[in-house]
Amino acid sequence: MNIVETKYYKINEPILLESGKEIKEVVVAYETYGSLNEAGDNAILLLHALTGDAHAAGYHKGDTKPGWWNDMVGSGKAFDTDKFFVICSNMLGGCKGTTGPSSINPETNREYGLSFPVFTIEDVVKVQKKLIDFLGVKKLTVAGGSMGGMQALEWALAHDCMVDNVIFIASTPRLSAQGIAFNAVGRNAILSDPNFNNGNYYDKERPEKGLAIARMVGHITYLSEEAMHNKFARRFQDKETPNFDFGIDFEVESYLAHQGQTFVDRFDANSYLYITKAVDYFDIAQKYGSLEKAFYNTNARYLVISFSSDWLFPSCQSKELVNALMRNKKDVSYCEIQSPCGHDAFLLEFETQTRIIKSFLCNNKT
Amino acid sequence: MNIVETKYYKINEPILLESGKEIKEVVVAYETYGSLNEAGDNAILLLHALTGDAHAAGYHKGDTKPGWWNDMVGSGKAFDTDKFFVICSNMLGGCKGTTGPSSINPETNREYGLSFPVFTIEDVVKVQKKLIDFLGVKKLTVAGGSMGGMQALEWALAHDCMVDNVIFIASTPRLSAQGIAFNAVGRNAILSDPNFNNGNYYDKERPEKGLAIARMVGHITYLSEEAMHNKFARRFQDKETPNFDFGIDFEVESYLAHQGQTFVDRFDANSYLYITKAVDYFDIAQKYGSLEKAFYNTNARYLVISFSSDWLFPSCQSKELVNALMRNKKDVSYCEIQSPCGHDAFLLEFETQTRIIKSFLCNNKT
Repeated sequence: MNIVETKYYKINEPILLESGKEIKEVVVAYETYGSLNEAGDNAILLLHALTGDAHAAGYHKGDTKPGWWNDMVGSGKAFDTDKFFVICSNMLGGCKGTTGPSSINPETNREYGLSFPVFTIEDVVKVQKKLIDFLGVKKLTVAGGSMGGMQALEWALAHDCMVDNVIFIASTPRLSAQGIAFNAVGRNAILSDPNFNNGNYYDKERPEKGLAIARMVGHITYLSEEAMHNKFARRFQDKETPNFDFGIDFEVESYLAHQGQTFVDRFDANSYLYITKAVDYFDIAQKYGSLEKAFYNTNARYLVISFSSDWLFPSCQSKELVNALMRNKKDVSYCEIQSPCGHDAFLLEFETQTRIIKSFLCNNKT
Repeated sequence: MNIVETKYYKINEPILLESGKEIKEVVVAYETYGSLNEAGDNAILLLHALTGDAHAAGYHKGDTKPGWWNDMVGSGKAFDTDKFFVICSNMLGGCKGTTGPSSINPETNREYGLSFPVFTIEDVVKVQKKLIDFLGVKKLTVAGGSMGGMQALEWALAHDCMVDNVIFIASTPRLSAQGIAFNAVGRNAILSDPNFNNGNYYDKERPEKGLAIARMVGHITYLSEEAMHNKFARRFQDKETPNFDFGIDFEVESYLAHQGQTFVDRFDANSYLYITKAVDYFDIAQKYGSLEKAFYNTNARYLVISFSSDWLFPSCQSKELVNALMRNKKDVSYCEIQSPCGHDAFLLEFETQTRIIKSFLCNNKT
């Protein structure tokens, strides 16, 4: 069992954000697996999704559950730690060690709450870049699923000379109106919770009901209808007949309630607001004039993976990206993996992903 | 301009519900358009969706907006009032004139609230049947979209000898796990609202925030991704750049907020709980052993219409119904209408629906 530890890097300069605001002090929580070579060019930066953290692989001392992408990271795995120096950091605004709204603002000695500046994926990558430089990395592969894929694209565009390979999984070059709508409902549930108290709840009861509802909505979008049917169908929870009341009747209701409850135990409602907002704002085409123009000057190789039953970030959105890259005559491989698992497939379909990613990294031009 | 009035019929006997409970007194709000013939066999009963009402067509005195299916009901329209006696009633448990949780319980002289018994689609139809008998109808066509389609099926199965034709639009013979999940989130938002107060809020502030969130979630499922994109894309509301705060940024957010707000002005949160529960419970296959067995003894003609971009009640669920009817050698016509409008298409795609329904009713065997 691989015991790993989260480390912390304090950035010794203020970060200027896309909004024009500044964060004075940012600490980044990160983990590394494997070793950086002398040239500093065998790094892989893993970029986590909405509610992920720096703990991608291995076990924390005393834990029985490994990191969120443990099946993908390690000796001989997709991200092979015998060859690569794998890095994962908690994103800016998160609540797992990196500075975010639940961190103490050194100027007030209280949690930031809603005084934390709104940030974008560009800002998230800006912070990651500081960490990567600190670690002595010269060249890297960036890889991420869902919101992690957005960060991977941003890396390729903002730091073209450093990024050799981009692995973009179950993601989108811009969030759809439907995606924004689902995020808006989640935020609305948090903002409507009387315990939200304008974001100042850290020494009080937390907006758990609102955050749980946000998670439930999100969770429905992470599964496909087929996956839900296979998992729950229309079975009642621990019984054969309906309750005829408003308690939990069906298994799927029990599952959602459980997802909501465990989420509030591990995640901060303010972080949820900020991170979903960053996702909403992400739009490569808008920033560069068009998706095609965005990639005109990039040199990285791209691997794009989507999943057939992902309706949150459907394959057609990946194909838009692939088409834009092909029109620029870039080196791009695309694979739509047939899977019933919906958006969550990037956290579940390890075998196929491993085969594809290994082969892609094996043919690395560097 | 056709001025119509809502009428009320008081059922003079208690209604025994599927749960085993009883409602002592039920008043049914209904409207009729056209005239019943002497034989009493030219009736069409329209069955409304989740938040509909008895006011399907024409104008209430002083109103500028007509009933919810006005484009489909009238002289020369799909449901032609020159030929047919068209009836629409507010469903049991609704909040538009028919007895529901916001009605006064004659035994306590207070609103029922959560003391209203939980009911099913079978119970809803049972109440409609009393109205139909009272009106002197002997034979009828039943037609409805979404939850209205469920009621139409229930009519065909429960009152086979009365039902000549079933028009089932954008509906499903049973709600999917995903559908239950979305309903559960909406109910959760209502139940979590501190103003909900265990359903006793009629003389206090109402659980408006919870009900608005329920409506927002619902509304996303009524539109297709394509429809949302066509309507809103990623445009900001009244501006060109992001707010960098948690107010309304995008047009789609403004639209959802508006949908939520107007809904709380016209709908009762308790009714929302009860009606979504009735939808969750609806499962013809479970009730009769299988979908195929369910229709073994029915004699009605069926017209099944689905919409290509409806992902709430997708075409495959209509096809299951069609297949079950065909295996029973029943008279069934099926049409999937190509439309980008999502589930809401049954309230929008009038031309195609009119053509299909007119032709179906024209070939009526009666």
